[in-house]
Amino acid sequence: MKFLIKIKYLGTDFCGFQVQKGQRTVQGELTEIFSEFFSQKTAITGCSRTDSGVHANEFCITAEPECFDSVTIAAEKIPFAIAHLLPKDISVYEASVVDDDFHPRYNVKGKEYLYRIYTEPCENPFFFGRLMHARPEISDEQVILMQRAADFIVGTHDFTAFMAQGSKIVDAVRTVHYLTVEKRNGIIEIKIHADGFLYNMVRIIVGTLLDVAYGRKKAEDLPKIIESKKRENAGSTAPSCGLYLNRVDY
Amino acid sequence: MKFLIKIKYLGTDFCGFQVQKGQRTVQGELTEIFSEFFSQKTAITGCSRTDSGVHANEFCITAEPECFDSVTIAAEKIPFAIAHLLPKDISVYEASVVDDDFHPRYNVKGKEYLYRIYTEPCENPFFFGRLMHARPEISDEQVILMQRAADFIVGTHDFTAFMAQGSKIVDAVRTVHYLTVEKRNGIIEIKIHADGFLYNMVRIIVGTLLDVAYGRKKAEDLPKIIESKKRENAGSTAPSCGLYLNRVDY
Repeated sequence: MKFLIKIKYLGTDFCGFQVQKGQRTVQGELTEIFSEFFSQKTAITGCSRTDSGVHANEFCITAEPECFDSVTIAAEKIPFAIAHLLPKDISVYEASVVDDDFHPRYNVKGKEYLYRIYTEPCENPFFFGRLMHARPEISDEQVILMQRAADFIVGTHDFTAFMAQGSKIVDAVRTVHYLTVEKRNGIIEIKIHADGFLYNMVRIIVGTLLDVAYGRKKAEDLPKIIESKKRENAGSTAPSCGLYLNRVDY
Repeated sequence: MKFLIKIKYLGTDFCGFQVQKGQRTVQGELTEIFSEFFSQKTAITGCSRTDSGVHANEFCITAEPECFDSVTIAAEKIPFAIAHLLPKDISVYEASVVDDDFHPRYNVKGKEYLYRIYTEPCENPFFFGRLMHARPEISDEQVILMQRAADFIVGTHDFTAFMAQGSKIVDAVRTVHYLTVEKRNGIIEIKIHADGFLYNMVRIIVGTLLDVAYGRKKAEDLPKIIESKKRENAGSTAPSCGLYLNRVDY
């Protein structure tokens, strides 16, 4: 048995999820905190590697104390009991017990990411590190163009064109279930759900949609870009600060 | 002549607006930045003193270069020209020229403050330093009670009961033009507009409204509390992190 734990984190001051020597990472912090909490070595495994600066509204980890049977706290009490040990940029809000064969990454059936962009003339201190700042403003008509381009991305495709160069993935076929572009209170929100994501896939898709918004590409170019399987045909990689892992489905 | 400048700032890492030796303050940072920008000593005066941790969606300052006539930049270009000198928690978004006799504090006719509260079971890292965390959850019915109490505060009253003890104000009569309590996307937003505010007045009003929400006071107690002019009859002072100066009227 092990614990399946849902967390949120503000990614600004983390070098991503995965432990890296000499860097502040979410996995590194949580390994220490849960080991202290359970008074024993505790292995932390995540549902995804996220890049430096990427945030999570919902991120799933498993926590495996070396000797699970010695743990006496009820899973549902963990969020409240561990709160005082957590740094201000991580919260634990749900915990349950799962079988040994549950793996927080391999068992994922789908994930939703959110990307947020604001287009005010000047940088907004409340959005620093939390939203991408793009200029000039994006009109409702441009949002419609972005959505038209997005519709070509939905479905099962080889997404090699939307994968960071140098990635070692052999099979780049993924199924995007939805990709929506909306403007709410002046903020562009892009939501994407897929069965899996390639390295930098969401950020490259966002960069490509911004090219469409600003007229550097046409919505109708998307099928050609996908078919080409060439990274250089897609847009640039949007910054990590606008990206949120939003939901994990098992 | 001098410049009237509108700024936003995230108050988390500031010891308030007003310059204090050895502390990071908004006035301190802006005095240095504007003096560098205009290449001459520049006096910064603010529309309000805000406490440590308080934020501003709109805050007005004047910037007075020692020799105004030597400044050649057009006011409307200042926000873009100065942006690269600003720290990430301050932005300058509007600038114009005003007469010498304009004073950013004495000329204020009214101000609007916003106070934000969330009531999720666990602390939310995205809200840390930006919203007050109150527990337990506040229902729609409790919001209605808060609004009922708020309605007694609107109008012209002696607000001594809602002023931090030790304040040296002689005349504590102020006129509150509106005070609204709303729940939006699970967040309690309290907006208050008055011709002036006493020290900690908004935060004490918020603490009192929370007492009403949680049944520690009744909405109908408010007239008595106001009339008593006794600080101890009002609620506790809500934390600074939830408070935003939202608009300044001249």
